Amino acid sequence: MRIIHSSKEMQNAALELRRAGRRIGFVPTMGYLHEGHLSLVRLAQQHADVVVLSLFVNPTQFGPQEDFSKYPRDFARDEALCRDARVDILFNPTPEDMYPEGHSTFVEENALSRGLCGASRPGHFRGVAIVVAKLFNIVLPDVAVFGEKDAQQLRVIRRMTRDLGFGVRIIPGPTLREPDGLAMSSRNKYLGPEERIQALVLKRSLDKAVALYGTGERRAEVLHTAMVAMLKSAPLARIDYVEIVDDETLERVTVIERPALVALAVFIGKTRLIDNVVLRQPT
Amino acid sequence: MRIIHSSKEMQNAALELRRAGRRIGFVPTMGYLHEGHLSLVRLAQQHADVVVLSLFVNPTQFGPQEDFSKYPRDFARDEALCRDARVDILFNPTPEDMYPEGHSTFVEENALSRGLCGASRPGHFRGVAIVVAKLFNIVLPDVAVFGEKDAQQLRVIRRMTRDLGFGVRIIPGPTLREPDGLAMSSRNKYLGPEERIQALVLKRSLDKAVALYGTGERRAEVLHTAMVAMLKSAPLARIDYVEIVDDETLERVTVIERPALVALAVFIGKTRLIDNVVLRQPT
Repeated sequence: MRIIHSSKEMQNAALELRRAGRRIGFVPTMGYLHEGHLSLVRLAQQHADVVVLSLFVNPTQFGPQEDFSKYPRDFARDEALCRDARVDILFNPTPEDMYPEGHSTFVEENALSRGLCGASRPGHFRGVAIVVAKLFNIVLPDVAVFGEKDAQQLRVIRRMTRDLGFGVRIIPGPTLREPDGLAMSSRNKYLGPEERIQALVLKRSLDKAVALYGTGERRAEVLHTAMVAMLKSAPLARIDYVEIVDDETLERVTVIERPALVALAVFIGKTRLIDNVVLRQPT
Repeated sequence: MRIIHSSKEMQNAALELRRAGRRIGFVPTMGYLHEGHLSLVRLAQQHADVVVLSLFVNPTQFGPQEDFSKYPRDFARDEALCRDARVDILFNPTPEDMYPEGHSTFVEENALSRGLCGASRPGHFRGVAIVVAKLFNIVLPDVAVFGEKDAQQLRVIRRMTRDLGFGVRIIPGPTLREPDGLAMSSRNKYLGPEERIQALVLKRSLDKAVALYGTGERRAEVLHTAMVAMLKSAPLARIDYVEIVDDETLERVTVIERPALVALAVFIGKTRLIDNVVLRQPT
């Protein structure tokens, strides 16, 4: 496995791979890798000859009150996991390289980014869009894999990729869960033992929505009420948002007639967790 | 010469050229080509194996009160000029292709874009940044040539290219002028006979600044006053701005100690013309 810290070197390596006719698969991450990330690597390997995993805790996608400085980092562990997963290139740029002095260019998707996490975390998706656009230009991938756990991010990136004409195919990677149902996340590390137990309420609340939908219920309000009641059963949970939106437009729906994204963000203690499920008619 | 209207087809052609190891030179234009554009093509030919000229009157860089609809267009003439100039690919996308339904992603440089034309034309450089970013992703150039006449645009694009990590070398092309000194521009076509004569005041005003600088004058105010007086000598001229700014930061200077950009925008009748010169110590 090659480890690259400079974006110039990464871009040159990518250009060389492309000239050699190799397909580049890309998995952008903020590190502190877990099985979820590694499943994205495996997906990338299925669609490409060479897999690049980037590891960059991107400052611009954190708000001033958020957990940028304490976001978990463990390069040695991540490096070992990448080697085991047969990642070809681990790209680990410096903040100075990604955001040189006088950096003044922004990329912003402003329809799909507005609600959900975009409303709770102003500027978050602007940070995501700029870093992903820049990483695409440096890594020059044929395909890039994004986890479905970050449902809104996946949709924002897909839109940005289309709008800006990037020649990159975006592949969604299914959410991986712990045996008890908690969606895998680097932030799960923040949870204390009691919080870890109560964090299961996110998945249970989504299961509730799926069950109601399965019985034929199509009123978003009914699902929403049931989900909120479930979340409130956990004393350490504080709801950031619970939303039922159109899966394409991310606009709130009242009656579910097309595929709908059920998404939530919940603080368990001080830790903000997200999870989601898509409701669609069985075909 | 190959003519391509679809961005997908253009991107595939570019990928094929790159795989074949050919260097792509790119000249983005809004068409209605003149000798200035053709000089950019020649410059691109010096730095690349294959030259792509794009012809797209980009709606997003025009303000609502500006001349988008009446901007001069003559595809047959442009096509012939491109053939004569040995352009390899003429890329002429449709607005629907460049801005598909639901387009919601923006690119914005927000330091260098603020003053000068950015102040007079709100949103202009946002439109420029997004179209150039998208064209770079579609045409995949190794080098791209931008005219020095659009001084601020050149600097905004250079900054955007660096900030977003595009692997594109930006090459500036010197301003071409009519024999009497008027900078070549597709908009010169709008000028009536008397306007055409009075339009020379832009260049004369710049010459005045150069002459004063040549005598050792370094106070921006003195240059500015002389330029304004010159411009006011033309009754059909209405000043949009006359600015003396640092060539790197585009911030206004009072004493010229480093290279300075002298830039102006002047309406001659209803036609807005721009021109500029860089003042620097002879080395």
